[in-house]
Amino acid sequence: MLIVKKFGGTSVGDKDRIFNVARRCIEDYKAGHQVVVVLSAMGKTTDILLNQAREMNLNAPKRELDMLMTTGEQTSVALMAIAMDALGVPAISLNAFQVSMNTTPVYGNARLKRIDTDRIKHELSNKKIVIVTGFQGINKYDDYTTLGRGGSDTTAVALAAALRADRCEIFTDVDGVYTADPRIVREARKIEEITYDEMLELASLGAGVLHNRSVEMAKKYGVELVVRSSLNNSEGTVVKEVVKMEEMFVSGVACDKNAARIAVIELEDRPGVAFKLFNHLANHNINVDIILQSVGRDGTKDISFTVDEDAADEAAAIIERHRQGSLKCSRVEVEKNVAKVSVVGAGMMSNPGVAAKMFEALYDANVNIKQICTSEIRVTVLIDEKYADVAMNAVHDAFALGK
Amino acid sequence: MLIVKKFGGTSVGDKDRIFNVARRCIEDYKAGHQVVVVLSAMGKTTDILLNQAREMNLNAPKRELDMLMTTGEQTSVALMAIAMDALGVPAISLNAFQVSMNTTPVYGNARLKRIDTDRIKHELSNKKIVIVTGFQGINKYDDYTTLGRGGSDTTAVALAAALRADRCEIFTDVDGVYTADPRIVREARKIEEITYDEMLELASLGAGVLHNRSVEMAKKYGVELVVRSSLNNSEGTVVKEVVKMEEMFVSGVACDKNAARIAVIELEDRPGVAFKLFNHLANHNINVDIILQSVGRDGTKDISFTVDEDAADEAAAIIERHRQGSLKCSRVEVEKNVAKVSVVGAGMMSNPGVAAKMFEALYDANVNIKQICTSEIRVTVLIDEKYADVAMNAVHDAFALGK
Repeated sequence: MLIVKKFGGTSVGDKDRIFNVARRCIEDYKAGHQVVVVLSAMGKTTDILLNQAREMNLNAPKRELDMLMTTGEQTSVALMAIAMDALGVPAISLNAFQVSMNTTPVYGNARLKRIDTDRIKHELSNKKIVIVTGFQGINKYDDYTTLGRGGSDTTAVALAAALRADRCEIFTDVDGVYTADPRIVREARKIEEITYDEMLELASLGAGVLHNRSVEMAKKYGVELVVRSSLNNSEGTVVKEVVKMEEMFVSGVACDKNAARIAVIELEDRPGVAFKLFNHLANHNINVDIILQSVGRDGTKDISFTVDEDAADEAAAIIERHRQGSLKCSRVEVEKNVAKVSVVGAGMMSNPGVAAKMFEALYDANVNIKQICTSEIRVTVLIDEKYADVAMNAVHDAFALGK
Repeated sequence: MLIVKKFGGTSVGDKDRIFNVARRCIEDYKAGHQVVVVLSAMGKTTDILLNQAREMNLNAPKRELDMLMTTGEQTSVALMAIAMDALGVPAISLNAFQVSMNTTPVYGNARLKRIDTDRIKHELSNKKIVIVTGFQGINKYDDYTTLGRGGSDTTAVALAAALRADRCEIFTDVDGVYTADPRIVREARKIEEITYDEMLELASLGAGVLHNRSVEMAKKYGVELVVRSSLNNSEGTVVKEVVKMEEMFVSGVACDKNAARIAVIELEDRPGVAFKLFNHLANHNINVDIILQSVGRDGTKDISFTVDEDAADEAAAIIERHRQGSLKCSRVEVEKNVAKVSVVGAGMMSNPGVAAKMFEALYDANVNIKQICTSEIRVTVLIDEKYADVAMNAVHDAFALGK
């Protein structure tokens, strides 16, 4: 088997952890597998480097920031190769130049375009463990780029796709994907298998295990993902296209407390006003979720929506700026103490009762629903943040996810 | 003018020093010159990285050590570009891949083979200051290599040669090359101009300002070198092929206290015994200097020579190991408290009295000479280490170098 294994910064944070990771990879190698390891920068290295740069220049050129940050992963991979050698296993580290990890030109947030696999295949055929820098690429100018948030996961999935690896294991500090956050819902159960789409919904809803970009890429190229713990040897969760039929038609409950609700009250009801509102926000890169529009009355209507909590003030300010122009309204309200609670499951497409069952559970738990949003495999409600944990447990119980 | 400026690790050791270097480079840029800057890793970075590796693996693969260490200069050059941007001057950092700085394959001690200048010239024509990583290269396998001791000086000189730069300035913590170490000889005087050959002799005798390899390369390609202080704006010393005729035929006095003398007593006088002795040492990479052989007597002879102090015990042990075999002798003596004092000067070729004058000065100062060695532009004596400073001053005075 050809296995790609990705470890984040915490997993390689010091000497002992590096040796731990080395030993895990060597297990697979000694079992006869070909092993490609993708690493992030050690611990807080990236933050430390960014701070150094910021102390010198608050508007440092992004090209130079990428040049600076890419030293972080190079340090990790070199030390990992040195650790594996100490354990008697031949290994070689490769950076984005050596692999030829081609990206779009944009610095700080590039997309992978093409990965040359010749060098990696050559080293694998020489019976070496190949250790590749995550998060980084090179663009057509021969300059370093970085891939933005979740970048190392993306590197791992892309490498797995390019190498037609049998599996891509993403190691994190949790055992796998759970039916709900185990810190909040004590009965939460680890999911054995989950589809890409369900994982995407969970990821975007703050499950936080995998970044969306890597799941999207895995889905696109049919890469079998495994989310595993770097701390123990348990099986983890497999993310793939078709999963074993389970009785469960809901696979998990997710909660996002990093949400704020903005209400635009008595907005003048002219054609295109909703378009203008959301266009202004999009122009400032503000992502909007769960939109609700009231039925119009007296030539006005109310529109409310959610945004990430840290974007709330900026979003409100943007609307205020256009109150005398294209967005005439009586006032803008910002409510930050809200949470989104969602049930996700591919099975719910053919089970129309899911939403009703969720609402019933919340009603029984005395949780008031402020707003509702549904997709084919998801039902999301907006509630008061202080009831989030109660709501999670109530919904988790109602769907008997703990069994 | 096209100027290559090289700054060592101490000169870029922290934020303030980086900004200092940036300002010095910007002065030249604003005066209308094209500026290429070569940097070492910040402060003790290289040592810290090496220690990290050693803690994990005492025999770390050299390829991976180079992969690890090259992150040091990349960090320096990126931060320098960020500092220059903060000062409003366009700059771009380039590593060995981006320049295409080709070396021989050997890790840890590679030699530069060919430097592509296209990218650097392109960036210079875009009115940028170009900042290049010193000390590092890439070999034919597309792997990082490092250039060994004095590597960044070598990078700077090689770049100056490849770019046909008008001058190559090496910044250090001293003002330039002196007629003797100013800490020992108070009357020591800064030399305005010196030939490559004189500089080579001084460098190899512990003047420590420039590494031999960079001087040899400068001589080979006719690169005009300037040794300057990174702390002040004084003129420094120019190293070139032909210097202004000065009255002085001796240009400096050098002292090397890091020497030890090994005497092999009553060595069996068979054909090839000297060859065998020095061949054994060469096989262990021990450099030998100032060899003295006594006239043979009773079928034996004495051979003594000097080595670097830290190699003395190993050298003695190697000879001991062969005492029962190819190197039959009565005993091996090691004397560590010795120093080499030398006068250097291109002028002495046509002035036969130099050696005699030196010996006279030492005799007047009551310094006993243990051994003597001469080349065309150098006279070296081995003396007791405790008289080294007295000897330096006596010789410096005798040749009136302070005037």
